[in-house]
Amino acid sequence: MNPGRCAACRYLRRKCPPDCIFSPHFPPNVPQRFVSVHRIYGASNVAKLLQQLPSHLRAEAAESLCLEAQYRIEDPVYGCVGLVSSLQQQIQDTEKQLAKTRAEIAFLKSQARLSHAALEGNLLDNAVNINFSDHQSFHG
Amino acid sequence: MNPGRCAACRYLRRKCPPDCIFSPHFPPNVPQRFVSVHRIYGASNVAKLLQQLPSHLRAEAAESLCLEAQYRIEDPVYGCVGLVSSLQQQIQDTEKQLAKTRAEIAFLKSQARLSHAALEGNLLDNAVNINFSDHQSFHG
Repeated sequence: MNPGRCAACRYLRRKCPPDCIFSPHFPPNVPQRFVSVHRIYGASNVAKLLQQLPSHLRAEAAESLCLEAQYRIEDPVYGCVGLVSSLQQQIQDTEKQLAKTRAEIAFLKSQARLSHAALEGNLLDNAVNINFSDHQSFHG
Repeated sequence: MNPGRCAACRYLRRKCPPDCIFSPHFPPNVPQRFVSVHRIYGASNVAKLLQQLPSHLRAEAAESLCLEAQYRIEDPVYGCVGLVSSLQQQIQDTEKQLAKTRAEIAFLKSQARLSHAALEGNLLDNAVNINFSDHQSFHG
Protein backbone atom coordinates (compact mmCIF):
# COMPACT_ATOMS: atom_id res chain seq x y z
CA MET A 1 0.00 0.00 0.00
CA ASN A 2 1.29 3.40 -0.98
CA PRO A 3 0.56 5.90 1.83
CA GLY A 4 0.90 8.81 -0.64
CA ARG A 5 -2.15 7.82 -2.69
CA CYS A 6 -5.14 10.17 -2.69
CA ALA A 7 -8.53 9.10 -1.31
CA ALA A 8 -9.84 8.37 -4.84
CA CYS A 9 -6.93 6.12 -5.86
CA ARG A 10 -7.08 4.29 -2.53
CA TYR A 11 -10.80 3.71 -3.00
CA LEU A 12 -10.35 2.61 -6.62
CA ARG A 13 -7.36 0.43 -5.59
CA ARG A 14 -5.06 1.87 -8.20
CA LYS A 15 -1.75 3.70 -8.37
CA CYS A 16 -1.97 7.45 -7.83
CA PRO A 17 -0.22 9.03 -10.85
CA PRO A 18 1.70 12.32 -10.39
CA ASP A 19 -0.88 14.12 -12.53
CA CYS A 20 -3.89 12.48 -10.79
CA ILE A 21 -6.99 14.61 -11.42
CA PHE A 22 -8.45 13.64 -8.00
CA SER A 23 -5.33 13.99 -5.86
CA PRO A 24 -5.43 17.80 -5.15
CA HIS A 25 -9.11 17.66 -4.13
CA PHE A 26 -9.49 14.29 -2.42
CA PRO A 27 -6.76 14.01 0.24
CA PRO A 28 -6.30 10.58 1.88
CA ASN A 29 -7.26 11.91 5.32
CA VAL A 30 -10.87 12.69 4.21
CA PRO A 31 -11.88 9.43 2.47
CA GLN A 32 -15.63 10.13 2.80
CA ARG A 33 -15.50 12.98 0.28
CA PHE A 34 -14.59 10.61 -2.54
CA VAL A 35 -16.94 7.87 -1.35
CA SER A 36 -19.86 10.34 -1.64
CA VAL A 37 -19.08 11.68 -5.13
CA HIS A 38 -18.28 8.17 -6.37
CA ARG A 39 -21.62 6.88 -5.13
CA ILE A 40 -23.64 9.65 -6.79
CA TYR A 41 -21.73 10.59 -9.94
CA GLY A 42 -19.25 7.76 -10.46
CA ALA A 43 -15.48 8.31 -10.61
CA SER A 44 -15.29 8.74 -14.39
CA ASN A 45 -17.99 11.44 -14.46
CA VAL A 46 -16.23 13.37 -11.66
CA ALA A 47 -12.89 13.06 -13.49
CA LYS A 48 -14.49 14.21 -16.77
CA LEU A 49 -16.12 17.20 -15.09
CA LEU A 50 -12.89 18.28 -13.39
CA GLN A 51 -10.79 17.73 -16.53
CA GLN A 52 -12.96 19.99 -18.66
CA LEU A 53 -12.40 22.92 -16.24
CA PRO A 54 -9.34 25.17 -16.00
CA SER A 55 -7.20 24.00 -13.07
CA HIS A 56 -7.86 27.10 -10.90
CA LEU A 57 -11.61 26.28 -10.84
CA ARG A 58 -11.28 22.59 -10.00
CA ALA A 59 -11.08 22.97 -6.22
CA GLU A 60 -14.39 24.86 -6.09
CA ALA A 61 -16.00 22.38 -8.50
CA ALA A 62 -14.82 19.40 -6.40
CA GLU A 63 -16.18 21.10 -3.29
CA SER A 64 -19.60 21.78 -4.85
CA LEU A 65 -19.77 18.19 -6.20
CA CYS A 66 -19.03 16.84 -2.70
CA LEU A 67 -21.75 19.05 -1.22
CA GLU A 68 -24.31 18.07 -3.86
CA ALA A 69 -23.47 14.38 -3.44
CA GLN A 70 -23.87 14.76 0.32
CA TYR A 71 -27.29 16.43 -0.08
CA ARG A 72 -28.38 13.62 -2.45
CA ILE A 73 -27.25 10.92 0.02
CA GLU A 74 -29.13 12.65 2.85
CA ASP A 75 -32.23 13.27 0.71
CA PRO A 76 -32.32 10.76 -2.18
CA VAL A 77 -35.60 12.14 -3.53
CA TYR A 78 -34.90 15.87 -3.66
CA GLY A 79 -31.16 16.30 -2.99
CA CYS A 80 -29.90 19.84 -3.36
CA VAL A 81 -33.12 20.82 -5.19
CA GLY A 82 -34.99 20.21 -1.90
CA LEU A 83 -32.74 22.76 -0.22
CA VAL A 84 -33.34 25.21 -3.09
CA SER A 85 -37.12 24.84 -2.65
CA SER A 86 -36.87 25.32 1.10
CA LEU A 87 -34.70 28.45 0.65
CA GLN A 88 -37.12 29.85 -1.95
CA GLN A 89 -39.95 29.29 0.55
CA GLN A 90 -37.90 31.07 3.24
CA ILE A 91 -37.38 34.05 0.87
CA GLN A 92 -41.12 34.22 0.17
CA ASP A 93 -41.87 34.17 3.92
CA THR A 94 -39.30 36.87 4.66
CA GLU A 95 -40.63 39.01 1.79
CA LYS A 96 -44.18 38.64 3.16
CA GLN A 97 -42.94 39.75 6.59
CA LEU A 98 -41.15 42.69 4.96
CA ALA A 99 -44.31 43.75 3.09
CA LYS A 100 -46.32 43.52 6.34
CA THR A 101 -43.71 45.54 8.21
CA ARG A 102 -43.65 48.19 5.47
CA ALA A 103 -47.44 48.44 5.63
CA GLU A 104 -47.10 48.95 9.39
CA ILE A 105 -44.63 51.80 8.72
CA ALA A 106 -47.02 53.44 6.25
CA PHE A 107 -49.79 53.23 8.89
CA LEU A 108 -47.55 54.67 11.63
CA LYS A 109 -46.48 57.51 9.32
CA SER A 110 -50.12 58.38 8.55
CA GLN A 111 -50.90 58.27 12.31
CA ALA A 112 -47.91 60.56 12.94
CA ARG A 113 -49.24 63.01 10.33
CA LEU A 114 -52.72 62.97 11.96
CA SER A 115 -51.17 63.46 15.40
CA HIS A 116 -49.07 66.35 14.10
CA ALA A 117 -52.13 67.95 12.50
CA ALA A 118 -54.06 67.55 15.78
CA LEU A 119 -51.20 69.18 17.68
CA GLU A 120 -51.15 72.12 15.26
CA GLY A 121 -54.94 72.40 15.43
CA ASN A 122 -54.75 72.41 19.22
CA LEU A 123 -52.13 75.18 19.24
CA LEU A 124 -54.45 77.22 17.02
CA ASP A 125 -57.44 76.60 19.34
CA ASN A 126 -55.24 77.58 22.25
CA ALA A 127 -54.40 80.92 20.59
CA VAL A 128 -58.08 81.54 19.73
CA ASN A 129 -59.10 80.75 23.35
CA ILE A 130 -56.53 83.16 24.74
CA ASN A 131 -57.69 85.94 22.38
CA PHE A 132 -61.32 85.19 23.27
CA SER A 133 -60.50 85.35 27.01
CA ASP A 134 -58.67 88.67 26.52
CA HIS A 135 -61.65 89.97 24.61
CA GLN A 136 -63.99 88.90 27.42
CA SER A 137 -61.81 90.49 30.12
CA PHE A 138 -61.69 93.76 28.09
CA HIS A 139 -65.48 93.91 27.82
CA GLY A 140 -66.17 92.06 31.13
CA MET B 1 -36.61 1.46 -34.54
CA ASN B 2 -39.30 0.96 -31.91
CA PRO B 3 -41.32 4.19 -31.57
CA GLY B 4 -42.51 3.08 -28.11
CA ARG B 5 -39.04 3.21 -26.52
CA CYS B 6 -38.42 5.79 -23.78
CA ALA B 7 -35.86 8.58 -24.23
CA ALA B 8 -33.28 6.66 -22.16
CA CYS B 9 -33.55 3.41 -24.16
CA ARG B 10 -33.46 5.37 -27.43
CA TYR B 11 -30.33 7.16 -26.30
CA LEU B 12 -28.70 3.96 -25.06
CA ARG B 13 -29.79 2.17 -28.29
CA ARG B 14 -31.38 -0.71 -26.46
CA LYS B 15 -34.78 -2.38 -26.19
CA CYS B 16 -37.17 -0.71 -23.74
CA PRO B 17 -38.33 -3.52 -21.40
CA PRO B 18 -41.89 -3.41 -19.98
CA ASP B 19 -40.47 -2.78 -16.49
CA CYS B 20 -37.96 -0.15 -17.67
CA ILE B 21 -36.91 1.99 -14.69
CA PHE B 22 -36.48 5.08 -16.93
CA SER B 23 -39.60 4.78 -19.06
CA PRO B 24 -42.16 6.48 -16.72
CA HIS B 25 -39.86 9.48 -16.16
CA PHE B 26 -38.08 9.94 -19.48
CA PRO B 27 -40.73 10.06 -22.23
CA PRO B 28 -39.48 9.92 -25.85
CA ASN B 29 -40.82 13.40 -26.63
CA VAL B 30 -38.41 15.08 -24.15
CA PRO B 31 -35.06 13.49 -25.10
CA GLN B 32 -32.98 16.30 -23.50
CA ARG B 33 -33.99 15.25 -19.97
CA PHE B 34 -32.17 11.94 -20.28
CA VAL B 35 -29.21 13.44 -22.15
CA SER B 36 -28.62 15.82 -19.20
CA VAL B 37 -28.80 13.22 -16.40
CA HIS B 38 -26.73 10.78 -18.45
CA ARG B 39 -24.02 13.39 -18.96
CA ILE B 40 -23.78 14.29 -15.26
CA TYR B 41 -24.62 11.09 -13.37
CA GLY B 42 -24.39 8.33 -15.95
CA ALA B 43 -27.31 6.01 -16.78
CA SER B 44 -26.39 3.31 -14.26
CA ASN B 45 -26.19 5.77 -11.32
CA VAL B 46 -29.59 7.24 -12.23
CA ALA B 47 -31.10 3.74 -12.52
CA LYS B 48 -29.56 2.74 -9.17
CA LEU B 49 -30.87 5.86 -7.45
CA LEU B 50 -34.40 5.37 -8.81
CA GLN B 51 -34.43 1.64 -8.06
CA GLN B 52 -33.62 2.13 -4.39
CA LEU B 53 -36.66 4.42 -3.94
CA PRO B 54 -40.30 3.35 -3.52
CA SER B 55 -42.07 3.76 -6.86
CA HIS B 56 -44.31 6.66 -5.72
CA LEU B 57 -41.20 8.82 -5.04
CA ARG B 58 -39.40 8.11 -8.31
CA ALA B 59 -41.10 10.80 -10.41
CA GLU B 60 -40.00 13.55 -7.96
CA ALA B 61 -36.50 12.07 -7.73
CA ALA B 62 -36.19 11.95 -11.55
CA GLU B 63 -37.37 15.56 -11.73
CA SER B 64 -34.87 16.77 -9.12
CA LEU B 65 -32.03 14.83 -10.82
CA CYS B 66 -32.92 16.49 -14.17
CA LEU B 67 -32.92 19.93 -12.53
CA GLU B 68 -29.61 19.33 -10.75
CA ALA B 69 -28.02 18.01 -13.95
CA GLN B 70 -29.29 21.07 -15.82
CA TYR B 71 -27.81 23.42 -13.18
CA ARG B 72 -24.46 21.58 -13.40
CA ILE B 73 -24.41 21.82 -17.21
CA GLU B 74 -25.17 25.57 -17.02
CA ASP B 75 -22.64 26.15 -14.22
CA PRO B 76 -20.02 23.35 -14.26
CA VAL B 77 -18.12 24.87 -11.30
CA TYR B 78 -20.90 25.46 -8.79
CA GLY B 79 -24.02 23.74 -10.19
CA CYS B 80 -26.98 23.73 -7.83
CA VAL B 81 -24.72 24.74 -4.92
CA GLY B 82 -24.17 28.09 -6.69
CA LEU B 83 -27.91 28.65 -6.65
CA VAL B 84 -28.05 27.69 -2.95
CA SER B 85 -25.32 30.26 -2.15
CA SER B 86 -27.09 32.95 -4.15
CA LEU B 87 -30.41 32.21 -2.39
CA GLN B 88 -28.71 32.25 1.03
CA GLN B 89 -27.25 35.67 0.11
CA GLN B 90 -30.72 36.84 -0.93
CA ILE B 91 -32.14 35.71 2.44
CA GLN B 92 -29.40 37.59 4.29
CA ASP B 93 -30.14 40.75 2.29
CA THR B 94 -33.89 40.48 2.90
CA GLU B 95 -33.29 39.87 6.62
CA LYS B 96 -31.06 42.98 6.78
CA GLN B 97 -33.82 45.01 5.10
CA LEU B 98 -36.33 43.57 7.57
CA ALA B 99 -34.13 44.52 10.55
CA LYS B 100 -33.71 48.05 9.13
CA THR B 101 -37.46 48.37 8.57
CA ARG B 102 -38.19 47.12 12.09
CA ALA B 103 -35.74 49.70 13.51
CA GLU B 104 -37.61 52.36 11.50
CA ILE B 105 -40.88 51.18 13.09
CA ALA B 106 -39.38 51.38 16.59
CA PHE B 107 -38.23 54.95 15.82
CA LEU B 108 -41.64 55.96 14.44
CA LYS B 109 -43.37 54.47 17.49
CA SER B 110 -41.12 56.45 19.85
CA GLN B 111 -41.79 59.61 17.78
CA ALA B 112 -45.54 58.89 18.01
CA ARG B 113 -45.25 58.58 21.81
CA LEU B 114 -43.36 61.90 22.01
CA SER B 115 -45.92 63.56 19.76
CA HIS B 116 -48.76 62.17 21.88
CA ALA B 117 -47.06 63.42 25.07
CA ALA B 118 -46.61 66.87 23.47
CA LEU B 119 -50.29 66.92 22.49
CA GLU B 120 -51.33 66.04 26.04
CA GLY B 121 -48.91 68.65 27.44
CA ASN B 122 -50.36 71.26 25.13
CA LEU B 123 -53.92 70.46 26.20
CA LEU B 124 -52.79 70.95 29.80
CA ASP B 125 -51.11 74.28 28.96
CA ASN B 126 -54.27 75.31 27.17
CA ALA B 127 -56.33 74.62 30.28
CA VAL B 128 -53.82 76.49 32.48
CA ASN B 129 -53.84 79.46 30.09
CA ILE B 130 -57.63 79.64 30.13
CA ASN B 131 -57.69 79.54 33.95
CA PHE B 132 -54.95 82.16 34.08
CA SER B 133 -56.91 84.41 31.65
CA ASP B 134 -60.05 83.95 33.77
CA HIS B 135 -58.06 84.81 36.87
CA GLN B 136 -56.66 87.93 35.18
CA SER B 137 -60.12 89.07 34.01
CA PHE B 138 -61.45 88.53 37.54
CA HIS B 139 -58.73 90.64 39.08
CA GLY B 140 -58.21 92.92 36.04
